[in-house]
Amino acid sequence: MKIPEILMVETVHQPGSLARVLGVIAEAGLIIDHLNAVRREQGRTLWEITLEMDEDTDRGLYARIDALPTARFVGKSDRVFDRHRGGKLRLRPSIPINTQQVLRDIYTPGVARVCLAIRDNPELAWQYTSLDRTVAVVTNGTAVLGLGNIGPLAGLPVMEGKAALFAGLVDINAVPILLNETDPARCVEVIAAIAGSFGAIQLEDFAAPECFEIEAELRLRLDRPVLHDDQHGTAVVVLAALHNATRRVGRSIEDCAIGQVGLGAAGLGIVRLLKCHGAVRVKGADLSPAALERLRVLGGEPSTLEDIMATCDVVIATTGVKGLIRPEMVRPGQIILALSNPDAEIDPVKALERGAAFAADGKGINNVLGFPGLFKGALEARAPRFTDEMLIAAAHRIAELAPGDDLVPDPLDRNVHAAVTAAVREAALAARQSEKLEALG
Amino acid sequence: MKIPEILMVETVHQPGSLARVLGVIAEAGLIIDHLNAVRREQGRTLWEITLEMDEDTDRGLYARIDALPTARFVGKSDRVFDRHRGGKLRLRPSIPINTQQVLRDIYTPGVARVCLAIRDNPELAWQYTSLDRTVAVVTNGTAVLGLGNIGPLAGLPVMEGKAALFAGLVDINAVPILLNETDPARCVEVIAAIAGSFGAIQLEDFAAPECFEIEAELRLRLDRPVLHDDQHGTAVVVLAALHNATRRVGRSIEDCAIGQVGLGAAGLGIVRLLKCHGAVRVKGADLSPAALERLRVLGGEPSTLEDIMATCDVVIATTGVKGLIRPEMVRPGQIILALSNPDAEIDPVKALERGAAFAADGKGINNVLGFPGLFKGALEARAPRFTDEMLIAAAHRIAELAPGDDLVPDPLDRNVHAAVTAAVREAALAARQSEKLEALG
Repeated sequence: MKIPEILMVETVHQPGSLARVLGVIAEAGLIIDHLNAVRREQGRTLWEITLEMDEDTDRGLYARIDALPTARFVGKSDRVFDRHRGGKLRLRPSIPINTQQVLRDIYTPGVARVCLAIRDNPELAWQYTSLDRTVAVVTNGTAVLGLGNIGPLAGLPVMEGKAALFAGLVDINAVPILLNETDPARCVEVIAAIAGSFGAIQLEDFAAPECFEIEAELRLRLDRPVLHDDQHGTAVVVLAALHNATRRVGRSIEDCAIGQVGLGAAGLGIVRLLKCHGAVRVKGADLSPAALERLRVLGGEPSTLEDIMATCDVVIATTGVKGLIRPEMVRPGQIILALSNPDAEIDPVKALERGAAFAADGKGINNVLGFPGLFKGALEARAPRFTDEMLIAAAHRIAELAPGDDLVPDPLDRNVHAAVTAAVREAALAARQSEKLEALG
Repeated sequence: MKIPEILMVETVHQPGSLARVLGVIAEAGLIIDHLNAVRREQGRTLWEITLEMDEDTDRGLYARIDALPTARFVGKSDRVFDRHRGGKLRLRPSIPINTQQVLRDIYTPGVARVCLAIRDNPELAWQYTSLDRTVAVVTNGTAVLGLGNIGPLAGLPVMEGKAALFAGLVDINAVPILLNETDPARCVEVIAAIAGSFGAIQLEDFAAPECFEIEAELRLRLDRPVLHDDQHGTAVVVLAALHNATRRVGRSIEDCAIGQVGLGAAGLGIVRLLKCHGAVRVKGADLSPAALERLRVLGGEPSTLEDIMATCDVVIATTGVKGLIRPEMVRPGQIILALSNPDAEIDPVKALERGAAFAADGKGINNVLGFPGLFKGALEARAPRFTDEMLIAAAHRIAELAPGDDLVPDPLDRNVHAAVTAAVREAALAARQSEKLEALG
């Protein structure tokens, strides 16, 4: 698996000195991910060069850069680690606690009035506590990113990353909860026992197939929104991207034969949402017979990689297997979303060379576009659960906001998240309204 | 039980107009807790008058104020509720997430490097996540303040208040966890299953006697600090206050006969810490035979209220029973700490009238002085548990910092909390050092 590494390289301030460094990197077969001039003084420039490396990368590269007459290999940067030092989350009180009056209002004795009001009318907790802005990000660490079962503690940086994004993009207080349990029934028991602490629950990086059982049981038992992001958050962003990709080539999701390669949490989540959205022909491939059975329950047709490549208009891959799709399997006119991160099933450039109408990898199709607005919208509507209408509303809004030829909008734009929030909230409120009408009718 | 109410009263800007309002309040037998001029315009002043009222308070008061020729009863203030609106906690990312580079460093793909580093060396989680600044504030709501078993949701404002204080005073990320469980064994199971999410665990407002079992079992099972604040946090602040009170009258804790009235969580926590600190003669009184048995295990002597009042130099009361100690029971020279909030067992003024050498109630002896520094110090030292040395170090530092004739220092002074933090950290590190020396033989 490829992990980004940041090299610190100093060059003499002369034409060609950086080009020679990049030439050495090119010879090693590596692509420049980022390049940044950190400092320029006394005729020398310090560069931060980000490369994606795996175990097979030839580290002799460092010595070859250092051997150049106009460059020096300074070392590897700790920038990623530096940005993690001390953790990524900071809690603050909503008002400064600087007088006795404030202390006595927000703590004893004043707080007792608020406690008694909530005891008499539990609904008031949604006004007078942080419940309506608080989401648990729960994992047991059994399927963290593409790293597999590395356990909850090693998964904590991902949970803090999601929490930091929740806080930074939609002002949600997100709380990483590490679950020291792998048995699904026990996971459900523990989450249900603490669910009252949060306005909603995001399940994250639980391995398939346990993730399906855990989510389904919690949705039944809890009175508040629960979402396994790997399944549904990813599906929302894929649906948005696919909506735009099919329109760019004059097609629609409904009239395409769609093949989903890889039926883990993400793959089945995508199939489920596409079927909901109106996709008619959906094939799926996976090595696990149980996964194929789950596909069948969702209305998909079990198939193989070869058949999907030979017959489908749209191919989506979420297998985690680098290079699984060989270029010669691609047929002209296909739409290919090879989404495994960090190593795609096929390089989009190679798919396009073979005549694909459209090809993208997982770099841009980031679930950061989905989960903040999904949860914020659900909380703003006080929705008791996520519905397919809410997921589809989010996907449509994300698709609409993609500028120019992009498949999706900028995930760091708070306006995008505000718009997704509004779409989800409206869908939730509409659902509640129609439930009320049904109940009356 | 007395709950603070804030009256909004408008007076004409004339000598005597406010005095007449206060006269009406005095006739109702109420004490002014706070008085604040909110606005003065067009010859009229709007006052915020805070009074502690209970069910028996004559609300006819409002009409009598309104009937004054120079005053108008405007209504009751929502200030306490206003300060709770939207909750008391706000989460922020540690750095602004405003560029693709930051996103890729703190989330995928960069975060994978940190995950793998922690997988290979779990110790690194204490450097590269927020673990070392994160504390769970866990309750099942069975004994919230003096309000009793109001359940975890109604207790949430208290947990958020503590979390806001943690954040505001010592920069700790505190997370309210509401536990929908009352069975002690199940409480322990759930807390243990999520304990890896936090650097330390504060138990809060669990009822006695279950609180003892829950805390003891968690201390055995977890590798990180656990503290039931009602027991030990309160005890630390009482020890500090008592240290100063005894010195003011030329005595010491060791040479006093001490009586503890009320052997719930707080009472037994106080007895335990006083015995630890070197108190020789400690009597205790409670209506529950089981509580008296727990007292005996701690080395205290079961007794009665009457015997304690007749024989002890120091009397500490934590019963929640207003007026339990009748003035005529007080003997000259006694030190009386009547700590129940908001209604003390005896008014300190009345105790002093009967010749008490020193008398105080729970208003000033606030556990806010203890818990922030206790947890911050334990986390800074990476202590595996709280020890009595850490509790006593905190109490001594708090006692030292009391200015002039005060029993304890200002709980809103961050310098006080920094000093307590340092004392606890040093005690924890000294304990670790001596454990190492012992292990070396």
